[in-house]
Amino acid sequence: MHRRDFLHDGTILLAGLALSRGARRDLFPQHNVDTPPKVNGQRLNATLAQLSRYGSNPQGGVSRVAYSDADREGRLYIRSLMENAGLEVRLDAAGNLFGKSSGRRATEPSILFGSHADSVPEGGNFDGDVGTMSAIEVMRTLGEQRIVTDHPLEAVCWQNEEGLLFGSRAFAGLAKSSDLDLGSTSGKTIRDGTAFIGGDPSHIDSAKRAPGTVACYLELHIEQGGTLERDHVDIGVVEGIVGIWEWTVTVTGFANHAGTTPMDQRKDALLSAARFIEMVHRVVRAERGRQVGNVGQIRAEPGAPNVIPGKVVMSLELRDLESATVDRMYARITDEARTIGAADGTSFAFTPISASQPARCDPRLQQVITTSARELGLSSRPMPSGAGHDAQEVARVAPVGMIFVPSVGGISHSPKEFTKPEDVERGANVLLRSVLAADRLFESAPT
Amino acid sequence: MHRRDFLHDGTILLAGLALSRGARRDLFPQHNVDTPPKVNGQRLNATLAQLSRYGSNPQGGVSRVAYSDADREGRLYIRSLMENAGLEVRLDAAGNLFGKSSGRRATEPSILFGSHADSVPEGGNFDGDVGTMSAIEVMRTLGEQRIVTDHPLEAVCWQNEEGLLFGSRAFAGLAKSSDLDLGSTSGKTIRDGTAFIGGDPSHIDSAKRAPGTVACYLELHIEQGGTLERDHVDIGVVEGIVGIWEWTVTVTGFANHAGTTPMDQRKDALLSAARFIEMVHRVVRAERGRQVGNVGQIRAEPGAPNVIPGKVVMSLELRDLESATVDRMYARITDEARTIGAADGTSFAFTPISASQPARCDPRLQQVITTSARELGLSSRPMPSGAGHDAQEVARVAPVGMIFVPSVGGISHSPKEFTKPEDVERGANVLLRSVLAADRLFESAPT
Repeated sequence: MHRRDFLHDGTILLAGLALSRGARRDLFPQHNVDTPPKVNGQRLNATLAQLSRYGSNPQGGVSRVAYSDADREGRLYIRSLMENAGLEVRLDAAGNLFGKSSGRRATEPSILFGSHADSVPEGGNFDGDVGTMSAIEVMRTLGEQRIVTDHPLEAVCWQNEEGLLFGSRAFAGLAKSSDLDLGSTSGKTIRDGTAFIGGDPSHIDSAKRAPGTVACYLELHIEQGGTLERDHVDIGVVEGIVGIWEWTVTVTGFANHAGTTPMDQRKDALLSAARFIEMVHRVVRAERGRQVGNVGQIRAEPGAPNVIPGKVVMSLELRDLESATVDRMYARITDEARTIGAADGTSFAFTPISASQPARCDPRLQQVITTSARELGLSSRPMPSGAGHDAQEVARVAPVGMIFVPSVGGISHSPKEFTKPEDVERGANVLLRSVLAADRLFESAPT
Repeated sequence: MHRRDFLHDGTILLAGLALSRGARRDLFPQHNVDTPPKVNGQRLNATLAQLSRYGSNPQGGVSRVAYSDADREGRLYIRSLMENAGLEVRLDAAGNLFGKSSGRRATEPSILFGSHADSVPEGGNFDGDVGTMSAIEVMRTLGEQRIVTDHPLEAVCWQNEEGLLFGSRAFAGLAKSSDLDLGSTSGKTIRDGTAFIGGDPSHIDSAKRAPGTVACYLELHIEQGGTLERDHVDIGVVEGIVGIWEWTVTVTGFANHAGTTPMDQRKDALLSAARFIEMVHRVVRAERGRQVGNVGQIRAEPGAPNVIPGKVVMSLELRDLESATVDRMYARITDEARTIGAADGTSFAFTPISASQPARCDPRLQQVITTSARELGLSSRPMPSGAGHDAQEVARVAPVGMIFVPSVGGISHSPKEFTKPEDVERGANVLLRSVLAADRLFESAPT
């Protein structure tokens, strides 16, 4: 709030330069690439390291699962950073943490940016953390440099991203009251966990943000895949968050004695399952594009070395930005499964488990991020997000944009997860420029 | 014993015909196929049905696991049948049950025949039972028909075949004292279980049969596979009991995010495992012969729908009558696994779990069984036993022969296990003739 004191008559202070309102449309022209505001990369990485202490594991990485003591303590640290940055801090009923700075026009909707701070068990120090700490660093930089935007700005730390994206779902008005009864990795129900971190589960509906109060949402996140690092690209401009479809696949054969049943008289459910797994990989790779498929769980029954498996239960997961691609792959997979079953004397059954629709990133925000990267001298390229993110929930109620930075070795959800400090800094600078560019973008065309 | 009263001067009474000793070598000539002794099939199947009541399950079949109350009660029933047949009943220290009839020559080694009466959990009414009840029926028939052999005859009911072939192992002197500490499906240790059925585990060594006291061992059993029924063959003449080799196969890849890791950058241990399973089936079927292979257990880690499996642990079991065949298949399997691993960026490790050597049936006894079947007008063919049997343990100390009868649908270790009453009767008649033929065989060439 103290920054507002430095603002006069429609000018903003930027890197020591006072610009007239009229000049703001060309705030960071091509020739001025060295002069725009930059975050303090050292400070940013220091706060990331400090956050990593909450729930740190002896073998590296963190276990800061939602609603754990470590989660609560980590969020208190984040809250203190927000307060020290002079932000107006608010916890909503869902337990999402917001740090707000007023914009010049109080009636404008907010530009929202942030991520989460909860981890998977034995996770890493970058998933979620990079986006959350960078949001605060952006706020600190803007405050120090006395830059005031037209829109109010809000840094956010969502709750329980790794579980059910619960915080952002509640924000989008998509959380069901029955969700509160669901368990979480911490052992607490979402209801008890939400109360544990200071939320008010009995008024969860109030966490739903009123339409028109958010101009857009930006999220910086680690890629969690290895393509940016492999191809020496600095910034991923996320085109959208893939939809995720999951099925349980049951193969039924006939359990029999593995010693007395000749090879040509078996109905081996595991042999059919093996053929299925190979086929899934072949079908998914046969499509052009970046769609993925996974069989991650498998159980053979009765499960004895000397008994031919009579039944196999597997998971099947398909992801893509286009639901039509998934429809096409699924049709081919079920078709080929029938052929395998016919040849092996087994049968396949598919039970849908879940289907989350793809969420498109706003094309204008993709352009904002691409331009911001270019102006910073960084290479970028469009890409899908294969993982789910809070942005996919927010996308139901506001335009969203996502910025990816490289994950070393493509490793995530692991103590080995790592993003180089310089890449964290680059991502935060892209976020900073994108926030400022969005402030201009939605000024002329509010949503 | 009372039958001996009917014997005079080297003649035996057979179906009302008195034959001179000299004529016994041609006891059942081809033209006399209707006249040899036959078991009472109806009675045999009635005792089988009675035995099935001990441990019967509401849904069919039995759970008469070794050392259970049902096992003890079933064995008491078998003991009563032996006693009522006038046999000299004895329980050895291992809990094996013998019913003996003296032969004409008291110093001759015994001709031993029988099987077991314990079942797997939710097993069937024929595995083991057919051989045990037929052995007793053979004794009853010989007694009724006042046929006395030169060799003493012993019907046997082994204990805990389904567990560790424990009774026959002790008989062969192969049981280790440490085996007594092992558990069993009943929940009792083998020590406690052996005592529970009347054995004397503290003197388990005394169950070892002195060399030269057994002329040969014959065992009638259900095939437990479907080849005899499929090919309309009445009798299987077992060439030997296959050796069983088991390994644990571990595939190591790299667990990663199933959404963010492109298909061409994965080290998916389950994909490699799928290729391995297909390859094992191909390699085993590529060999001529009746060898079998099975992957019956599989576990993928971490085992989540949205994580690429980083590790897979599987069982591999290979069985054949020739260890050289298994050596050759195993060499090819490990070789091809290396190729799969090299292509997928994964690695394979093989840990030997167990190796039981094949047990050959005595060629003379195979001939005896083949001839007996032919003389009864039954079709037969040589075949391996893919399952383990007490005969494989006895084979370490005496020549053995095994007779198989068809299993409907090849189903075994299941409540659906079934062998037709007429096939049970046929098998028992082959056993009867084989016992008599063995009596002649080992008279001239004792082992």
